[in-house]
Amino acid sequence: MNTIERLKKIKLVITDVDGVLTDNGLYYTAEGLVMKKFHVKDGMGVVLLRRKGIKTAIISTDESSIIKKRAERLKMDFVYTGTWEKDLKMKEICEIMNISEDEAAFIGDDVNDIGIIKAAGITASPADAMPEIKNMVDFVLPQNGGCGAFREFADMILNAQK
Amino acid sequence: MNTIERLKKIKLVITDVDGVLTDNGLYYTAEGLVMKKFHVKDGMGVVLLRRKGIKTAIISTDESSIIKKRAERLKMDFVYTGTWEKDLKMKEICEIMNISEDEAAFIGDDVNDIGIIKAAGITASPADAMPEIKNMVDFVLPQNGGCGAFREFADMILNAQK
Amino acid sequence: MNTIERLKKIKLVITDVDGVLTDNGLYYTAEGLVMKKFHVKDGMGVVLLRRKGIKTAIISTDESSIIKKRAERLKMDFVYTGTWEKDLKMKEICEIMNISEDEAAFIGDDVNDIGIIKAAGITASPADAMPEIKNMVDFVLPQNGGCGAFREFADMILNAQK
Amino acid sequence: MNTIERLKKIKLVITDVDGVLTDNGLYYTAEGLVMKKFHVKDGMGVVLLRRKGIKTAIISTDESSIIKKRAERLKMDFVYTGTWEKDLKMKEICEIMNISEDEAAFIGDDVNDIGIIKAAGITASPADAMPEIKNMVDFVLPQNGGCGAFREFADMILNAQK
Repeated sequence: MNTIERLKKIKLVITDVDGVLTDNGLYYTAEGLVMKKFHVKDGMGVVLLRRKGIKTAIISTDESSIIKKRAERLKMDFVYTGTWEKDLKMKEICEIMNISEDEAAFIGDDVNDIGIIKAAGITASPADAMPEIKNMVDFVLPQNGGCGAFREFADMILNAQK
Repeated sequence: MNTIERLKKIKLVITDVDGVLTDNGLYYTAEGLVMKKFHVKDGMGVVLLRRKGIKTAIISTDESSIIKKRAERLKMDFVYTGTWEKDLKMKEICEIMNISEDEAAFIGDDVNDIGIIKAAGITASPADAMPEIKNMVDFVLPQNGGCGAFREFADMILNAQK
Repeated sequence: MNTIERLKKIKLVITDVDGVLTDNGLYYTAEGLVMKKFHVKDGMGVVLLRRKGIKTAIISTDESSIIKKRAERLKMDFVYTGTWEKDLKMKEICEIMNISEDEAAFIGDDVNDIGIIKAAGITASPADAMPEIKNMVDFVLPQNGGCGAFREFADMILNAQK
Repeated sequence: MNTIERLKKIKLVITDVDGVLTDNGLYYTAEGLVMKKFHVKDGMGVVLLRRKGIKTAIISTDESSIIKKRAERLKMDFVYTGTWEKDLKMKEICEIMNISEDEAAFIGDDVNDIGIIKAAGITASPADAMPEIKNMVDFVLPQNGGCGAFREFADMILNAQK
């Protein structure tokens, strides 16, 4: 099955957070981790996917409640934090949605994403992902993490499904 | 009418916020969206326009009160947030000012700006706007959003009116 | 007098803040302007100048108390905020120090710095200063504002005085 | 002894903070220094080193408690702040660990790191370190400070020890 065919089947887009929706930045005060910086155009990507009936999910190893706030604001469908075994979590979401993993897209950037990258139907990474990840994914996007890479991936899927 | 002629007629400069006055960044804490980052030289652009008698306006889809604080500090003339139909809002401002839409300039960067871009007298986008926007506007500025793109646009208008 | 000779005479280094010590960024919350981002290596520049007996000063148009906090931390010798007529303020400092304006260096980046640039003994700007400023100063530094431009200028002065 | 041999011996990785784990940024509010920005992939570097039994340490001239919070989160083995004589502190850690300084790696970026760079077994700097530092270290990494330079250095050591 060629890439366009695989993009056409997507019903769920799963994203990592740090290094994908953010530029890897962790803002610390004397109280510890307090802030992450997200990107407006990625948020518009979630809106455009939803209008087309495509679900969105976050699966992050980080446990920060900052992530939940961002997901709430964007009305994303699934949010899991503190997860090391991301492939199992994807399987769980696919069962809830009653779809196959071929219908799930994933975007990630570091070695803890290797398992889910192998399992997902179509995969992408930001331009500044770790080299081993860039060698595995279907698409290395032109944008760095936190600079609209998710939106680019969303637009690719939406264009294929036009 | 050539571009210089159209720049000469401008009496109102309307700007989008996220991705134009900011670098698209949305800073989240555990309390949600808390911060945006603006650019000093854009603020000086508002000052220079005012000295020349040109009004300034913000029309943003985002509802954040952060935007109102920035507009207040810069003593901008009109501020509308939470607006999806930006072209209608521009029409409203033009009626208040008793000018035509040809006398209004607009700078924006994403698909929710398409309507107002079609209606405004002269239009621009930052260098990192969405491709469909860059294809529509009169000027793609050399600066990215949040890096002085608004100031560049202001200076172009002021230079044409010298 | 050539450039090296002029650098050798410097006893005071005056800096603008926004766009020189910062990357022009103004961080706003719902409470208004709350934060600016400074650069560690610029701070080390102030330390190295002081060790050599050279005084440092801030003259800023902005009135924010954030600036005072940064100046205090660096133990700078003079700090003036809310100042539009920067050349007059430089004159005042020179009188206090009993030096001539030829012995004062200035680094700035926008049109409100034009007066003081004309009066100071040696001048510089960051790489991303406004074009009219870059055309006026003795040195356009390779660094952007907030990225170590002040440190570069300090090192130039210190090297000339070795 | 060639570089690979020296990388193979490393049992401790010491890092500076500002300009290495951060992009040199110091975020100030009206209360003073409040925030620094760290990088997720550097954190993963600490995790990967620990899995291999390699200890990690911070030695910083800055005294900020922000640094301690980041080190705690990453469960780093040694954290010293407010230290100007970094080489003596490295010696102390090596004695505690009962290793030689040849078994310690160091990454730094500014002139206050010169002493420890001369003493450590293998050394690196980010791409945007001060020129005199880049001329002294074994490796100038392709990443700037705060952009994954520490992770790159960690991966080099881990690859040599595979």
